[in-house]
Formats: sequence, C-alpha cells, structure tokens
Amino acid sequence: MARSPEVVVIGAGVVGCAVAYELARRGASVEVLDERSVGMGATQASAGILAPYVESRDDGPLLELTTRSLGLFDSFIERVSSDSGIAVPYRRTGTLDVATDESEMRHLVEIAGHLSSRGVVTKLLDASAARLEEPQLTGTVVGGLTIETHGFVSAPELTRAAATAARRHGAQVVQPSHVKRICPIDGGDIRVETDRGALRGDAVVLAAGCWSGRVEIDGVDERVPVRPVRGQLLHLAWKGEPLRRVLWSPRCYLVPWHDGTVLVGATVEEAGFDESVTVAGVRDLLDAACEVVPHAANAGFGAARVGLRPGTPDDLPVIGRSSVNPNLVYATGHFRNGVLLAPLTAQLVADALLDDKNDPALEAVGPGRFGKL
Amino acid sequence: MARSPEVVVIGAGVVGCAVAYELARRGASVEVLDERSVGMGATQASAGILAPYVESRDDGPLLELTTRSLGLFDSFIERVSSDSGIAVPYRRTGTLDVATDESEMRHLVEIAGHLSSRGVVTKLLDASAARLEEPQLTGTVVGGLTIETHGFVSAPELTRAAATAARRHGAQVVQPSHVKRICPIDGGDIRVETDRGALRGDAVVLAAGCWSGRVEIDGVDERVPVRPVRGQLLHLAWKGEPLRRVLWSPRCYLVPWHDGTVLVGATVEEAGFDESVTVAGVRDLLDAACEVVPHAANAGFGAARVGLRPGTPDDLPVIGRSSVNPNLVYATGHFRNGVLLAPLTAQLVADALLDDKNDPALEAVGPGRFGKL
Repeated sequence: MARSPEVVVIGAGVVGCAVAYELARRGASVEVLDERSVGMGATQASAGILAPYVESRDDGPLLELTTRSLGLFDSFIERVSSDSGIAVPYRRTGTLDVATDESEMRHLVEIAGHLSSRGVVTKLLDASAARLEEPQLTGTVVGGLTIETHGFVSAPELTRAAATAARRHGAQVVQPSHVKRICPIDGGDIRVETDRGALRGDAVVLAAGCWSGRVEIDGVDERVPVRPVRGQLLHLAWKGEPLRRVLWSPRCYLVPWHDGTVLVGATVEEAGFDESVTVAGVRDLLDAACEVVPHAANAGFGAARVGLRPGTPDDLPVIGRSSVNPNLVYATGHFRNGVLLAPLTAQLVADALLDDKNDPALEAVGPGRFGKL
Repeated sequence: MARSPEVVVIGAGVVGCAVAYELARRGASVEVLDERSVGMGATQASAGILAPYVESRDDGPLLELTTRSLGLFDSFIERVSSDSGIAVPYRRTGTLDVATDESEMRHLVEIAGHLSSRGVVTKLLDASAARLEEPQLTGTVVGGLTIETHGFVSAPELTRAAATAARRHGAQVVQPSHVKRICPIDGGDIRVETDRGALRGDAVVLAAGCWSGRVEIDGVDERVPVRPVRGQLLHLAWKGEPLRRVLWSPRCYLVPWHDGTVLVGATVEEAGFDESVTVAGVRDLLDAACEVVPHAANAGFGAARVGLRPGTPDDLPVIGRSSVNPNLVYATGHFRNGVLLAPLTAQLVADALLDDKNDPALEAVGPGRFGKL
C-alpha cells in the first residue's frame, strides 16, 4: 500500500484499541467502531493479570504467544503511556500460586519442574515458606509456587491509554455504531455497513470479541466460532496490611492494587450473551477469596463487574488474514488473555497489514483453521 | 401558637420527611435541613417491611407503637400519594416466618400462642404446608408462621413522596447544611446554627437518626444516646417464579417487589459510623438467602446498600419534647422501625407541637428517660 492505508477496526476493547494504536502509530488512517464506549466488553471484567505460566501450563502455541507478548510489555507500556500522557498502572510483582491440599501441591511441583526445564525462574515453597511470603494466607495452606516474571496491569487504564494514544496519532476512536455487514468491493477495497451508514476502507480488522461472529461477511461462508464465556469479578476495598503480590488458588485469584483495591476473579461460565452479575457468581468468589485469605472477610465490598470473554473451540485466539478476503484481518478469540496478548496482537496485525509480513506465529492462530473464514 | 409556627426539622430521612409533611399539612411553615439529600441515611438501606409482630414479640411500648402506626398506614399512604402525586409502592401481603430446625419451630409456636391471645390472626404451618405456601422454600424447612396483616412499602419512594408532599404544602426540603448548634433565644424562639448561617424558628425537631447525638444543644447537659447500628441490604434481580410474600428466616428476610427485585436484609452490626458495605456482610446475606430459598443462587446480583440505624440503649425510639427546652422536640432513635413508625411519629410530633397535645404513648419514649435532654 503506497498511500496511507485506511483501516476500519471493529471493536474498542483492549485488543481493538491496541491494534488501532499500532496501526495509527505506523501511519495508517484508522477509524474504530463499537456499539459501546472504550473497554466495555470483556475488558471491563479483566483483572489485568499478566501470567502466561499460570494461564497455560503446557507447551504449545498459547504459551509461545503469551510469553512473547509478556516480553513486549515493558516497552509497550512505556510507549503507550508516553504517547497518551496517561500513566498506566503496571507492576511485575510476580505471582504466588497457592496449594491448599496435597494434590494441588503435587500439581505445583510438576509445573515447577516443567517451567525449570524451560528456563523459567520459579520457587517452590512449603507451608511455612508460603506464609512467610504472604503472611495473610490461610493456616491450611500446604505450599506454593512463585513465578517472578509475572505481573499485572490496569486493563481499563491500558485500554483508555491505547485509545488516547491512537487518537493522538490521528485515529478516530470510537464512533458508536452497530456493524451489520462487511463487503468486498471492486478494486480491492472493503465496505463496512453500519446502522449509521457505510464506511469504505482498504482493510478491516475484526476485533469484536465474542460478538465477532455476529458480523455478516460477504463471501465468507462460516462465522468465526467465538462464543461468550462469562467472567465475574469483584472489587474489594482492602483493610489493613496489603497483599504482597498476585495470589492464585484453584478457585480464584486476588490482585492487590496500590490504591488498596483488591480484584477477585473470576468465574468462567457458559451463559450465552447474558451479562448479569449473579448471586452464585458473587458468592463463589467471596467464598473462594475468604478460603485462601481469611482476612478478605474484613474488606469492603466495592463492586461486582461482569464481562463476556471470547472463547474459541481450541482455546487459541484467532489472529490473521481471512483466507477468503485478504483485506479482512481477524484479531479476536483471546478468551482470558486479551490484555496479555494485546501488544503482540497489535504488532502481528500491523506487520501483516502494513508490511505484508506474516509472522510464523500466525500459522497456529489463523482463521482458516475453522473453515472458509 | 397563634400565627403559623415556624419549625426547623433536622434530618431528611423517612422520619424527618414524614414529620415535615405532617407539620406543613397542618399549616406550619417548615424548613428541613440535612447534609445529604432526601432519604440518604438509614432510610436508604431499609427494606420497608411493616411487621410489628416480627420486630417486637414481647408486649411492651414498642409493640404498642408499631401496631398503632401500622394501623395508620393505609390512610397515610393514600394521603401522601395524593398530596405528592407519587404512587408509593405498598403491599400488605403478610409475612411468612420460616423455621429451619425444631428449636426455631418451638419459638414460632410460642409466638403464635402469644399473638393469638392478643387477637392477631396467625397460621402455624408444618413443613408441607409451608412449602405449599411458598414452593421455593428449602426442602429442609420444618415449618412456618404466617401473619396476614404485615406488609411492605418502598422506603425510598415513601420518603420521596413525603418530601414532595411537604413541599407542596409550602415546606422547604432540603437545604443542604451541616447543623452545628441549637440555641434557645429570648422570647422563646430557638436558633439553629449551621455552616451556612443561622435560622430562627419557633421550634426545632431533631430527626437526624444516628447523627442526632452530634448536634450541640445549648442548655442541654447530655446528648441523646443514639448510636449507629449498621445494616447492609442486597438488591437481587429475581429469575423465574416470584416469591409470594415477605419471608423471614432467623438469618435474613426476603422482600419480593413487583418489578422482580428481591431485597435481602439485613445485617445488624456495631461498626461505629463506618458506612462500608463489607465482604462479610454481603457473604452472610447471600448465604442466608440461599439457605432459605436455594433458587436465590440463580438471581442476578443488583447492588448492595448500607445504612446506619439509630439504636438506643433500651431499643425504643426517642420521641417528644425536650425536658429542658420545650421548643426542641426529638424524633429519633427508631432503630429498625423508622419506616413503620413514621406515620405515628409524625402525628405525635405534630400533635405536641401544634396542638400541645401529649399522647400517653409519649411517656415511654420521651427523651427525659436518658437524663437532662
């Protein structure tokens, strides 16, 4: 593309905004469409944990992608903060996986062995070492595993910063629109039909999370098989001594923020497009939090949030050019890893679209694996 | 008082607004002061249950007052709805007390006997009758007790209607002010000093709930001994078949609204002036609700609310003229019964202030019982 390419990004979540920012930064003319405002889909219920070795414990494409994206995070945060003028809260305090029975502990020992063979620095802790590491852990803790490279970032702030940085590079974020149809048109262009009229562009990036399958695409037989996987998350106002790092137990995680907020997440529910916070969800999270850190009972209850993550049949994201229409690029299906994978996804999409560079990583996550997409 | 008396009411909760309305309706010139807007103290966490025989099971002044006030409710609601133009949601569906073990059941049998001797219509139910009455009750229910005259009202709407009706009768509701001091002045008048200047009136009604003890009163040695008793309350979005009436279990109550909201209350906590919603409070209420109606787990979680009730050493309200300054009238300390006692309190205060009529009921609840007040 010789002139500045015009790209329409559908979806203003963390992935859509990161993609828009990267494209705009590299000179594209970008417009972001969403029915909602910035970060109001799955992103709003993300705790922002950056933990490839907790999310994906087997070798495979997901672990490759997530570790690679984690490696981009320092510079991505620096750049997006500088370009937006927004200081994005970001910490690399490590995670502490907690085992509350022997079988969980055996599982942590296996993981530690596996990660060590990959060269990842971990530390296995017995019960007393775990409680030394985090004195507020339950007395019934059996042991733990720390992984120092892990961290967390404020998902709402990161998304807001990416949107702002994209705007500063000339992008329009966000035009409230319900996208109905994507159609190829003569000359290789592509048209996006919305409830507020049609837009013409050189390319379209579909980053609409679990709603991506709802967009009609001319010439494409199948729909991208993303489904909503509900996640509920609590904001607690911690009292007393702060937690030292992200805690994972088999039933929940706790993320301690500097402002005293502790995020507790997250449910994983197949509930269709129902974005309700439920009694069962809140209760499970409260029980799970109090089980691993009894002092959580003394915290203030701030709010409950909910988001629908885009799940896929093989739990891998869908990133790359359509096999049918090369001007349509997918950037969806990130399930629990939208925040973690945002920097890498933005880079892969921009490389493909602006430099026609197809990273080998795209092979495992291309839309073609699900049919004529 | 020959001319139209000027009365300053301190506190815009359900009691203050009901008093202001009654005074204004009878011709007084009324001004209501509060730091917050209408109904933002204890009132905001009230489920609006009207249940004297659940709240007070022993004979005594509280049961006398609450049953008498319940008797005023039909006409009070009619009048306040008509004068305000606000249709206040109000239902007299009865309550169903639920016993989940034999000891609770023996307690219900005792209560039924006691109420029958007072002529109150009740019905004792065995397990199957209780589940016939409310099919969503837990399978472990042992029995129940229905009391048909009980009901519930929307506390926020009632308060808003009383405030609006008072305004329509010329009252000023509400002037945001922090009240510092009440001083008698020459000629029998009384001055209220606030952070926004001083007001002069013929009389002052102190209806500031648990904050009533914080107002400095010239010439009064003691402070009215009201203390904050925290109550947390949940709003659930019920799914499926509605509950038929108010349910009471030993650990919680559930109030079913026509719009599908179910209110679950309430904690009773001595936590000072801390108005936090807490993890422990929310968790206890969710557990208690799911225990008595397991289907509650399927409900949506709407919101958690909190309010500080004004408790007193003898659990009775404080209503009546100061023994030191006859132009100061107390209307506070209603603990869990502010909504239920609002109509009677308004009537007693207006009778005393405008007609110099001292109802015998005031004897038990006068401020003088706590010292030189």
